[in-house]
Amino acid sequence: MAKDFTKRADNYSQWYNELVIKADLAENSAVRGCMVIKPYGYAIWEKMQAALDKMFKETGHQNAYFPLFIPKSFFTKEASHVEGFAKECAVVTHYRLKTDENGKIVVDETAKLEEELIVRPTSETIIWDTYRNWIQSYRDLPILVNQWANVVRWEMRTRLFLRTAEFLWQEGHTAHATQDEALEETRKMLDVYATFAENFMAVPVLKGVKTANERFAGAIETFCIEALMQDGKALQAGTSHFLGQNFAKAFDVKFLTKENKQEYVWATSWGVSTRLMGALVMAHSDDNGLVLPPKLAPIQVVIVPIYKNDEQLAQISLKAEEIKKAIEAKGISVKYDNRDTYKPGWKFAEYEFKGVPLRLALGPRDLEEGTIEVARRDTMEKAIYQQIDIENKVEHLLESIQNNLYQKALNFRDMSTYKVDNWDEFKDAIENKGGFVLAHWDGTTETELKIKEETKATIRTIPLNNPKENGKCIFSGKPSTQRVVFAKSY
Amino acid sequence: MAKDFTKRADNYSQWYNELVIKADLAENSAVRGCMVIKPYGYAIWEKMQAALDKMFKETGHQNAYFPLFIPKSFFTKEASHVEGFAKECAVVTHYRLKTDENGKIVVDETAKLEEELIVRPTSETIIWDTYRNWIQSYRDLPILVNQWANVVRWEMRTRLFLRTAEFLWQEGHTAHATQDEALEETRKMLDVYATFAENFMAVPVLKGVKTANERFAGAIETFCIEALMQDGKALQAGTSHFLGQNFAKAFDVKFLTKENKQEYVWATSWGVSTRLMGALVMAHSDDNGLVLPPKLAPIQVVIVPIYKNDEQLAQISLKAEEIKKAIEAKGISVKYDNRDTYKPGWKFAEYEFKGVPLRLALGPRDLEEGTIEVARRDTMEKAIYQQIDIENKVEHLLESIQNNLYQKALNFRDMSTYKVDNWDEFKDAIENKGGFVLAHWDGTTETELKIKEETKATIRTIPLNNPKENGKCIFSGKPSTQRVVFAKSY
Repeated sequence: MAKDFTKRADNYSQWYNELVIKADLAENSAVRGCMVIKPYGYAIWEKMQAALDKMFKETGHQNAYFPLFIPKSFFTKEASHVEGFAKECAVVTHYRLKTDENGKIVVDETAKLEEELIVRPTSETIIWDTYRNWIQSYRDLPILVNQWANVVRWEMRTRLFLRTAEFLWQEGHTAHATQDEALEETRKMLDVYATFAENFMAVPVLKGVKTANERFAGAIETFCIEALMQDGKALQAGTSHFLGQNFAKAFDVKFLTKENKQEYVWATSWGVSTRLMGALVMAHSDDNGLVLPPKLAPIQVVIVPIYKNDEQLAQISLKAEEIKKAIEAKGISVKYDNRDTYKPGWKFAEYEFKGVPLRLALGPRDLEEGTIEVARRDTMEKAIYQQIDIENKVEHLLESIQNNLYQKALNFRDMSTYKVDNWDEFKDAIENKGGFVLAHWDGTTETELKIKEETKATIRTIPLNNPKENGKCIFSGKPSTQRVVFAKSY
Repeated sequence: MAKDFTKRADNYSQWYNELVIKADLAENSAVRGCMVIKPYGYAIWEKMQAALDKMFKETGHQNAYFPLFIPKSFFTKEASHVEGFAKECAVVTHYRLKTDENGKIVVDETAKLEEELIVRPTSETIIWDTYRNWIQSYRDLPILVNQWANVVRWEMRTRLFLRTAEFLWQEGHTAHATQDEALEETRKMLDVYATFAENFMAVPVLKGVKTANERFAGAIETFCIEALMQDGKALQAGTSHFLGQNFAKAFDVKFLTKENKQEYVWATSWGVSTRLMGALVMAHSDDNGLVLPPKLAPIQVVIVPIYKNDEQLAQISLKAEEIKKAIEAKGISVKYDNRDTYKPGWKFAEYEFKGVPLRLALGPRDLEEGTIEVARRDTMEKAIYQQIDIENKVEHLLESIQNNLYQKALNFRDMSTYKVDNWDEFKDAIENKGGFVLAHWDGTTETELKIKEETKATIRTIPLNNPKENGKCIFSGKPSTQRVVFAKSY
């Protein structure tokens, strides 16, 4: 499995692509840019969905579902939105095929749509068109809705999970009576994302705002969480947008206030996608394959029997099933792999490569001595434990692995964060070190774009609660009052 | 709420449409034929999904995700499949829009796809194209995969939930080494659907097979569950298809057997959709609004306070929250509606219309006497209960409602099932009585189609374990060995 597997140091990008495919997470499909998410990868996504969905509901949100298709004209209603989204997209122009005179299946030209339909790249337009009918008075507010859906953006260069033409995501779309309430919602959901990333994915994230240039098309302010991958590149892991009254104005959504006045509704939208799968893989995995945080691992513990004959297997299985039950009673998912078609060594390599957090091995001698071998995937440490009370030890170890992965990622980020004060240091950090580079910037899009042009680095975020500090822009030398976070990114 | 609400007896079809919209289940969108599933409707669908997903996993299935788009050429590979599905569908022909010289957003003709993409109407083709790479030997089998997804079929006449251009569903696609195993899977999933319909939806269903004419395009045999709606029309609630080796042959999916021979893989597919929402509404609801079986009700119990002033409300709220907690500890969902913006009468009508199974009302006198008013939505009965042990009484009542709804639907079906032995009786039953009509049929598609032409009735199913009985076809008079089930249908 891991034999012909590229090492991170040799080619990080190739390592990632191979890992995603060989670990059965996803693969490219016959349709350009669209991926197939395989059962093992989808099981991780389901765990992400379940955790996020619970957090959304605990913060008062409900799920709903809106159409896959958006009439072309809807995009033109919000001026900056159309620039950002209506360009590279899948366009439905016809609604029928037919068999031609040669027996070939062709598009029926008589079945041309009057207005083309766009496969949704994001749903603000169709949702705000819908909200117009849902909102009359302040009593109808807030609307706190989320949608789990597929979206399509016709990307030219695609990479499994990180950038695909079709991807899965959730998009929250909320409507509020006041600006303050909408801003509070935007920040609240940013916190939900950060909590999810840190507590479930074991990935530390910076919370902050985007520059005007990196803002969502149609937003007044875009908040984001930014994570650092092992190759020193940043990855935007989630965004939460304060949309002001832009979409309410574009779709004429007004409400009657308590004071009996007509006002436009305030909006937010926020989303995370299957891109998180890419972040998860790149944050923790190693040259031996996947490393999964226990909270998102489809199989948290695997038990492998070591035996020479059927009689031994039967005895071991009795004990293994007993241990499995005890661990499962803790709410932990356990697989007992007693398949006879594969040898223990093959199984060890397989589960290591698939990132199963804990592997237990049980042989004839363990039965005699009441012991069991326990191997941690994160540190690759092995130890012999007494079988007694194994379920509590396993529970404890899983917590330890979850915390260790987070701490390791946090240490890596700390070690990969640089403060630089001039252009040479900046270029050196971006080109030779990678990581988050904290530098002064003069606040103009012009400078931001020039820095990007010269170094490929972008401003990932202006952190929340950023300390004030006087300095000079590393590019223009103009005065600045705070450092912002630069990095190359996915 | 229910004031300007059509009665079933006056216009069943209009009653349904109004109910779906007024009960906030779904509405038509700006996109022809596509619906918006509103939060209350979606919450019911989520409960359906959760129950089904659990049953799928308990029977060994895993979820995965396949592309939304299918290359046009894929449809042509399975001859009968293309006839059934490639005709009325959404066709993506371009991947870019642009701004023209007048500033209008138009399709960029230079961005025309070489091969058109079809928005999936069902995924057999793209999935079997994928399985070709997943399956080499018998060790790779069975593959037991399910997908939760949206699909599009360009229906001309649409109705919320029952027939929409885009709908949500699950589609299972399994691959097996032998015909027997595939047939067993087909039957197993039919049983899962029947169990779900009866235990969760409280809708009794007939299990059976479809005639050749009603079979899924590409299947060898289609099994189905058929339910009866209150207007006497049948509704196909789920199908499970034995696909033989048709798709394996079309996509060249072979495997190496244990005996070292190359053989084509055996397939099944099975699905249920948001159509079940329509079935649920039509099976139980009444002239006062929705009636929901407790197992699928987003709110199972509502508590409404009756009060004259804030002081009373405060006292009642203390007790109500205590009762709410006790009931929730049973795993039952409870809403305490203490909103001051609506009067109790309005709330009563609202929850009645929304089909909340149990309504508890708590007033000042109840506080004095330790009582609480309990109203059942299914029978509309009200009774005064002692507050003591109310959580157990509520649990018991919810079970009683679930069972009662099933029994009521079963009684209705029994009363609406007719055995007829000649053409006049048949026409009378179909035209004047409705329901399931059991009649002899000569087994030919010709007769089946003629009966449909004359009466609009179709053969809904040939029940499993159908008793053998000699008779004569009600249309042709030819000999027959069993009765089949005719009905008009959705």
